[in-house]
This record gives sequence, structure tokens and C-alpha cells, in this order.
Amino acid sequence: MAKRPLILVTNDDGITAPGIRMLIEIMNGIGDVVVVAPDSPQSGMGHAITLNSTLYCTEIKVDDGPQKEYQCSGTPADCVKLAVNELLDRKPDLCVSGINHGSNSSINVIYSGTMSAAIEAGIEGVPAIGFSLLDFRWTADFSPLKPYIEKIVRNALSHKIPADVVLNVNFPLLPEEDIKGIKVCRQAKAHWVEKFDKRQSPMGRDYYWLTGEFINEDRGDDTDEAALAKGYISIVPTQFDLTAHHAMQQLNTWNFNE
Amino acid sequence: MAKRPLILVTNDDGITAPGIRMLIEIMNGIGDVVVVAPDSPQSGMGHAITLNSTLYCTEIKVDDGPQKEYQCSGTPADCVKLAVNELLDRKPDLCVSGINHGSNSSINVIYSGTMSAAIEAGIEGVPAIGFSLLDFRWTADFSPLKPYIEKIVRNALSHKIPADVVLNVNFPLLPEEDIKGIKVCRQAKAHWVEKFDKRQSPMGRDYYWLTGEFINEDRGDDTDEAALAKGYISIVPTQFDLTAHHAMQQLNTWNFNE
Repeated sequence: MAKRPLILVTNDDGITAPGIRMLIEIMNGIGDVVVVAPDSPQSGMGHAITLNSTLYCTEIKVDDGPQKEYQCSGTPADCVKLAVNELLDRKPDLCVSGINHGSNSSINVIYSGTMSAAIEAGIEGVPAIGFSLLDFRWTADFSPLKPYIEKIVRNALSHKIPADVVLNVNFPLLPEEDIKGIKVCRQAKAHWVEKFDKRQSPMGRDYYWLTGEFINEDRGDDTDEAALAKGYISIVPTQFDLTAHHAMQQLNTWNFNE
Repeated sequence: MAKRPLILVTNDDGITAPGIRMLIEIMNGIGDVVVVAPDSPQSGMGHAITLNSTLYCTEIKVDDGPQKEYQCSGTPADCVKLAVNELLDRKPDLCVSGINHGSNSSINVIYSGTMSAAIEAGIEGVPAIGFSLLDFRWTADFSPLKPYIEKIVRNALSHKIPADVVLNVNFPLLPEEDIKGIKVCRQAKAHWVEKFDKRQSPMGRDYYWLTGEFINEDRGDDTDEAALAKGYISIVPTQFDLTAHHAMQQLNTWNFNE
């Protein structure tokens, strides 16, 4: 029998979130699981890391599963750095992040703590996948995702994720029988139009809540948004080389001696 | 006479940092300047946004310049969202972020608050440039950068930055006469190897400081690291479509019906 893979599990909703508990349960059926996850919700943390304050990390027991678990005071990217460089004896065979309560499709990948953990793992040379469900409720039903997550993880372990690429997987909010399948997609071009809700504190000071509307300006049929709208699970191969190679020629025509 | 451009200035070191004060001074010579910047240092914040707490934003006067200034309790990305969607009457013609006290070359772009502000502006359709100096000291000398920043900004305003691209500009730590020129580069493939400094609090609780060593594994001559090492200013065109298009074909060979 082949050696069981070592799987690092993390997220950005915090170690007690139902999404990560489901992901841990699924991974326990595939490999040896170590969980290193934030001790509190970290949504919208992007690729933040903790440079100017201290990090706490404590081994804890949340349920009766065989996994080893640590909760950490930092961001999702901190959790991966701590796991790979301090807590684990060897490099994990896979890092899975999520299941996020809410979408990380399209431009949301940029703001996502779930995906920042997967990207951090990718930078450290660990194959990685972020999973997200298009339902931000704490009571979201993750059970329809189980067979698909198993298939995706088993494929990632056998076929290997391409080098310097991490997978961004999003699930439509549908019962299992209505999910049409899995599509490999590109990131839709979209953005948020913010509406700041301006209020006044009891002390008379103005403050804002950030709210916004998601605008998908991409009519393409090959995007994650298009796949999800049709009832497919989207997989976007995601990279951390941000170079816009196509723009280099144009920039080389600029005149810096003017 | 052409209308003066409206320039939004922000950073991640906080509104009183010497780097942003120099950038404001330079921009006052080019256009009408509005500053919306964090009220405290935000280094390592990546593309974090404030979803679960309130934002404060106050108009302030820091020096005698003609610019309008606001300090904000949020992250660099929050500052740009607030500026574009709430504070400014019209879309700025350019957003400049920095000058960062420290490098944002290579993989550091992922962790950078300076670049997250520029990228946020790019997502909102505002041409944007992040500037960083390879000197993290508060007392860093930004004066050698002045003529180069002027040239880069004037080129960006006249030639236009390509759509959906923002510029990541890094300056070597050299006197003006030793700077060799400007090079358009790709992001070097590199990573940090973390060393966690484990300590014990006066109450006996273990905690960590994140420290690390930057490892450039990229021998290419066309990278930002190579240009900086040779005394050039590096410009990397940077994109927020993270799709690894080259990996899609390989992923389409996976078998999800197994």
C-alpha cells in the first residue's frame, strides 16, 4: 500500500467554521491530516502577513477525528508559513484551504484569505487547492460538495498540479443532483462597485461600513462566473507570477530620457 | 493649457511616512493631488480589506502643500476604495502608491500593501503605479528618486498604462549618479524561507516572531532582481488576472469521473 499523503488543512473563516470541519472530515478519508487555522474569522485578509506583532499558536482538540490541530492568532498566510516552516516535520503533499463560506470566484481571488493560504502554500512549493461555496451563511450545507472534493483531491494527488499553479475551486449553491459537473475556467473580469454606508457613532464621529455590488463585465463563455451560473463547479488554475508579459513591449516604447 | 491631472496618492507606511511626503511633493509639481492614506503603518497587509469592522476617515493637514489629505483607519486597499467611491468627485487620472520604505520586487508584490493599493486602483479602472525603495529605514534618502519618478509619471500620463496593468517600480539603494537607468522586467521567481523566532511571554505563554530569508531561485537576466542588482530601476507590469492560462490544457486531461 502506498504511503498515506500528508495533508495540511487551513481556512480563513476560523478553525471552528462548519466549512473547514467538513473539509477535515473528507481529508481524513484520504490522508494524514494536520490542521493549522486561524483562531478567529479572517475574511477579506487578502495575502496579509503578521510582521509587526506576535503570533500565538496552540494545539487544540475540536472533535473526535484523527487529525492533529493547531489554532493560530495570525492570518491564513501566517498559518501556512507556521505549518510548513515550524510545526510540520516534513513538507506536506497537499494543502487544502476552505471550504470558504462564500464565493472566491473572479476578482474575489484577490481579496480572499482562503486563496491567500493556498497561494502561500504554492509559493512554498506545496501543491494547493482552495475550495469555496457560493453561500456565505454559517449554516450553509456543504454535503453536496463531498464527492466532488474527493475527486478533485484524488486527481491532484495522482496527476499532480502543474508547477507554480494553485487551484481555485468554487461550488454553485445547488443540491448534488443539480450540479452539472466540473469545468476548468479562466478568471472572469469583474469588479466591485463600493457603496460606503456612512453612519455616526454615539460620540458623534462619522464612520463607514464597506458594502458593494459585484459587477461582472465579462461576457465570455469560458469564465468561472459563466460556469457557476450554468450550474458547474469552476476550477481556475491560479498563478503568483503577476507579470503582465503582454504589456512589456508597449512599455519598452516609453521614453525615459524625455 | 491642458487641464491638470487629478492624482490620488496613498501608501502602506502611513500618511506621515517620509516616503509618501516625498511622493506628494513630486506629484504637486505635476497635478492636483488628493491624499487618502492609512493613519498607521500597514506593511504586509497584502490585499486585505475591512469587512467586519468600521472605517474612520478624517480630513487633515500635515504640511503647507496645496494637496487635500485624508487619513483613514483601514488598509491601503480600503483607502483607494474610499477615495474612488466616496471622497473624490471624479475618477482620478492616476493613482500613485508609496514611496515604500523597503523592497516590493519579485514575490514581495504578493505581500505588499503598497502594491495592493495600486492593484485596487487598477481594478477600479484607474491607471496606477507603486513606488518602492530598497531601504526600509524611516530615515531613507528618497531624493535620488525624484527625477525618475517624474519621468515615469509623465510617461504614464502621456503614453497611458496598458489596460488592466499596474506598474511595480523598485529603486536600488544608490546615489543618483550611480543609478544606471530604467528597465522593464518580469517578476523574479523567489520566495521567503521563514525562521520563526519562538519566545515565551512574561506569563509563560509561547509566541512567535516571523522572520525570514529571501531566496531568489531565478537566474534569469530579465528579472526585477537582476536589474536592481545591476543598479537599474525595475518596472514590472503587473496584472490582476491570476489565471494560469498555460496550465488549462493539462488540467483538462484530469478525469473527474474516476
